[in-house]
Order: sequence, then structure tokens, then C-alpha cells
Amino acid sequence: MDWKHNKAAEMLGISYPIFQAPMAGVTTPELVSEASNSGGLGNIGAGYMEAADIRETVNKIRRLTDKPFGINLFVPDSRSSFGKEDFSRIQDVVNGVAGELGLSSGSEPVQKDYQKLYEMQLEEVFQSNIPVCSFTFGIPEDAVIKELKKQGSIVIGTATNVNEALELEKAGMDLIVAQGSEAGGHRGTFHEEETGFIGSMALIPQMADAVNVPVIAAGGIMDGRGIAAAMILGAQGVQLGTAFLTCEESGANQVWKEALLSHSEDQTVFTKAFSGRFARGISNRFIKEMESYETILLPFPNQNDVTGPMRKQAAKSKNGEYMSLWSGQGIRLAEMTKVKDLMEKLVRDTDHILSKS
Amino acid sequence: MDWKHNKAAEMLGISYPIFQAPMAGVTTPELVSEASNSGGLGNIGAGYMEAADIRETVNKIRRLTDKPFGINLFVPDSRSSFGKEDFSRIQDVVNGVAGELGLSSGSEPVQKDYQKLYEMQLEEVFQSNIPVCSFTFGIPEDAVIKELKKQGSIVIGTATNVNEALELEKAGMDLIVAQGSEAGGHRGTFHEEETGFIGSMALIPQMADAVNVPVIAAGGIMDGRGIAAAMILGAQGVQLGTAFLTCEESGANQVWKEALLSHSEDQTVFTKAFSGRFARGISNRFIKEMESYETILLPFPNQNDVTGPMRKQAAKSKNGEYMSLWSGQGIRLAEMTKVKDLMEKLVRDTDHILSKS
Repeated sequence: MDWKHNKAAEMLGISYPIFQAPMAGVTTPELVSEASNSGGLGNIGAGYMEAADIRETVNKIRRLTDKPFGINLFVPDSRSSFGKEDFSRIQDVVNGVAGELGLSSGSEPVQKDYQKLYEMQLEEVFQSNIPVCSFTFGIPEDAVIKELKKQGSIVIGTATNVNEALELEKAGMDLIVAQGSEAGGHRGTFHEEETGFIGSMALIPQMADAVNVPVIAAGGIMDGRGIAAAMILGAQGVQLGTAFLTCEESGANQVWKEALLSHSEDQTVFTKAFSGRFARGISNRFIKEMESYETILLPFPNQNDVTGPMRKQAAKSKNGEYMSLWSGQGIRLAEMTKVKDLMEKLVRDTDHILSKS
Repeated sequence: MDWKHNKAAEMLGISYPIFQAPMAGVTTPELVSEASNSGGLGNIGAGYMEAADIRETVNKIRRLTDKPFGINLFVPDSRSSFGKEDFSRIQDVVNGVAGELGLSSGSEPVQKDYQKLYEMQLEEVFQSNIPVCSFTFGIPEDAVIKELKKQGSIVIGTATNVNEALELEKAGMDLIVAQGSEAGGHRGTFHEEETGFIGSMALIPQMADAVNVPVIAAGGIMDGRGIAAAMILGAQGVQLGTAFLTCEESGANQVWKEALLSHSEDQTVFTKAFSGRFARGISNRFIKEMESYETILLPFPNQNDVTGPMRKQAAKSKNGEYMSLWSGQGIRLAEMTKVKDLMEKLVRDTDHILSKS
């Protein structure tokens, strides 16, 4: 594999176009910096983070690496709105379904201003001058892209079908992540939901044919075979989530890591129950019980606020039945490892496969 | 690419382990024989065929090729049952939804004995001594597998997750088709439905790791890139459906072929509306209108009988809104071509990709 002349790696100033996916909530400074120190691109999943948290995380990362790294933000959906009663109703359902956790009902609705949060995050990103900034769930405003580019940041969009990729390219994205349906966690789809479930085998070549910017393949890639296959299909780089989740440095808790190591590809499902948006995770009691309440869920990310206390309590009680155990479909290939070892293995195996074929 | 020492090709006595998928209803003798004449494996989609049709088709194919070819049968589900009222109710809904076609309501329920049909098909397959026999929707009885092997046929099963593949291997299958979620047409899943939607990028390596028999990758593969990627992921061969549908020799009608050439990967959906089983096709009016009737559909393949007159009338009227326009997610890569040209291109491009990488 000719890593030296890889367009994406060159553009980013990294050795290997292998991204650690920006998984909100688990991207510790250690995970991000080790991915970058190993020649890949570490990414902070900052979608839910306050500006101060971002600053602290970035500072820690900069103490741990002098290599480029990235940050990922959620483009807010201004259409989402709900009333107090909507909140109370779904909160009662959630607390009832998770009854064994003994959650107290009746707290005030958390109507967080996500537009405001996003603006504060952006301001922090501008000030911190982060080398790479990626976006999920939509296209940032023109002014945001221009400002990032002005300060020399590489800007990345997330697409789940070709038309989304074309829009992102037109908006000026330097790179586009092609999120295949195998991917764990949230779907980045910003067109109609049902247009965004394309498997990587079909998504990568069609997107690579359609856009001129490099495509970074995500979804189902767990080892050198996946990387080599993605590059052959037309990708210029890859993004791995699940493979990094079971690393020592990841912020996923022990229950989640053990779930990843003991489940199989036929046990992950798409659910909106945790956050209001489709995300792929290991099926559990909460997902199953919530199936009948799909119509009363709050929009994303407000539903995420509703299930927050439950998820926190479940993690405390080490009860995986009420945690969001995000996972991609490559789950059988997950291994307990360290970022450095994982990265070395990925590069070595990709080289080996592509040299012998 | 070292086609000479490919395990699957060797086992089957063919030059290239490239299967034309057994798409029920469109696998004309010309399509099947040309795929085999070009060095691949042509396959008859015989799931709905009477024994006499099978005999005639096989005879025609044998006049057109002396190369190996295959036949595919549907393993019947003995659990499926429904009453006269169930039939009338859904027939009224279907005729109402497709009102513009002017279908007359009230015909007698077609309660075809699919177990009997399957037995007659098997008898014909035994007598015709077809080189390759593949199965979808389940595992044939031990005696059937033994009889096929006794007469020298290669027996192939279809799996949509690793556990299904393990069961098929245990049952004695010589090869296993790994049907990724990108694939067009019916899902072959015989475990719980929701366990069978795995993207090829994740499915191929995990299945190849788990079984000892060769895995044939299906789903989203449209060109040399897809073939090379599938082989790198661990497959010993590939099966293409959509790429063969737009060939001159395929039995897909003009409306269907034109739909394949003018739609994109974000426009295919899974639907049960046509047959009672999930299948991937281009979204149209019938699929959308039937969404609210999912609970009253008849089981497969009885629902297929209910929609039969509508689909026939729609084809006659060249009205794609009421036809089952099966398609995989690789649809943007579909091209009007001939089987021989397609096969040559697939082999040449695969060789080119794997020699330069």
C-alpha cells in the first residue's frame, strides 16, 4: 500500500488515512492522542460537549501529542420542538420501562438550547484552532466553513448516500466520510431517514465515482481486510469506531466493552429509543420495550436528555440492559487491545494483503 | 488474480467464481447459458417454477451450453397458513391500492400447495441431474442434500448471518452464499428477520472466519472493484444480481430495466408488500401505499399470489408503480450490456485492480 502518496493523508499531514471515529462520550484525550501518535487521525466526539470541556480536552490532547487531530460537532436541527407534557409523558415511559433501576420520576424537563451549545462549541473550535473539524447530521453554514478554512482547518462532512455527498462537496468540504449502514452509533443522515441505510460495499464506489474530494469509508471496517477492501472500492481513507471502542484508552465502560466482546453481528439493531435518532447498538431490554413507544419519543437530541439519568444509573449499576451499547456490525472482530497495537496491526495487515494480492 | 487456484471455481469446474444470481422470474435460458459460457456460473431462479418449466428450461440451457450451471429452489415454510377471509381482505386492499389498473376483485383464493411444488421441483432436479443446486429461505432435509451429493451435484446454501452459515455448513453445504443487506430481491434469512440485515463489509469477513467451506459474497457487488474487495474480505467467489438484470439476455421487462438505469442507491427499500417476505426493490406507489397494511399481508409466498394479477397487469400497462422492481443498492453502477461483455469486463477489471494494488 502506497501510504506516502495517499491524497487524504497528505492533505491532513498524517502517515496513514485511518481515522478513529469521533464517538461522542468515549473519546478520551488518551484515545485521541494515541490514534494520532500512531500515525492515524484521532477525533474528539464533541457533539454533546460544553465549550469548557472542549478546551480542557484539547489542552490535554496537545500535551499528549504534537500530531494533527480532529473534532466532530453535531449540526443542530432547528425544527425540533416539544412541549412540557411531551417531556413528562416520555419520561414516565422511560422510568417505567427501566423500573428496576429505581429512577425517581417528575424532574423538570431539560430543554437545553442546542443551537446555542453549537455556537459556543464553534467559537471554542475557532479559538483552539483545531487542525480538523468534522460535522454530522447536516451541513454547517457557509460562514462556518469559510472561517474554519481561513484558519487552515480541514473541514469534513458526513454523508450516508451519494446525494448528501454531492451537497457536502458543493458546500466546500475537503473530505467526506461515507457512513455505511454497518456503522455503529448514530446515522448521520440529513435527508429523509430511509435514504441513509446503504451498505459500504455499495456506498463507497458510488460515492467515490460521484465526488472529486477524497472519500473516507466508515461502517463495518475492523481490520486490514476491511481497510484494503475499502481502498479498492474507491475510498482514500477509512474511519473505524467499534475497533477503537474496545481499546484500553477508550472511555467505553467495562460493561459496554464486555458486551462488544460477547455479542455477534446478528445482535445489533437500529433504535431511536435512546436519543430520538436512529443509531446502531447491541439489542437489549430497553430497546425492545421501547419499540411500542416510537411515536412519542422526543426529537434528537432531546430524547437523549430524557434517557440520560437512566443511562447514568444503568452504568453505575453495571446493568447493560438500559445502556446504549453502540456497536457496528463488525462486532465479532472486536478485540481487547491498545490503540498503538491496533494501529500497527491495521497498517501491517493492510500492507500484507495488498502486497500479496 | 489467481483464478486458476480458486477453491470455489475448482469445485464447480468453472473458470471464474462469478455467479449470475438465481433471480426468480427473469433467468431466461439465454441469461443462464451465457453466464456459464463466459466462464461464470449461470443459475436458474426456479423458486416459483413448475417441474415441467424446469425441465424445458434445463433442456434449452443444455442446447446453449455444455458448461456447468445451477438451479435455485425455495425451501418452503410449513408454518405458513391463512384463511379464505384473510385472502379476500388483502386482495381487496391490493386491488383498491392499484385501483387505476382496473383489476376485478373477488376471484377465488389461490391456496397453492408450496410443499408439494417443492417436492415436484426436487424430483425434477434429481432427474435432470443439474450440476449445482442452491437453496434459499432455509436448510433442505438431510435426505435431499444426500441425494444431490450422491448424484454429484454441488449443494449451496444461502446465509444472511454467521449463525445461519454455521448451520448450513453443518448440514453439509459445499458452498455458502453470504447475502449482504445491499442485495436486491428477497432476503434469504431463515432465523429471526431482524438478524439478517448485515452489510457485506461486515458479513463477508465474519462468515469467512467462521466456516471452512468457501463463501460466495452477494450484495452490492457490481464491478471489478466489488469483486476484488469481496475476495480480499475473505470470499472465494461472488454472486451478482442487479448487474445481470440490465443485460440484454435477462428476462426483466423494459420498464424494470429503465427503472434500474434511472434510479439511485437511496431509492431502494425493503418491502414485504409484494410477497410477504422482505425484499429490496425500487420504492414506488404500491410499496408506499401498502405500508399501513403490513399486519394483514399473507405469509410468503401466498402474498405473492395475491399481488400476481396486479403485477401482471402493471407489466402489461408498462406501469412501474405497481411492479416489483427488485434492485440492489449498487444500482447507480447498472449498465445496459450483454452477459459476455459484462463477464469479460468483470474479469479484466478485477485482474487490473488486484495486479496494481
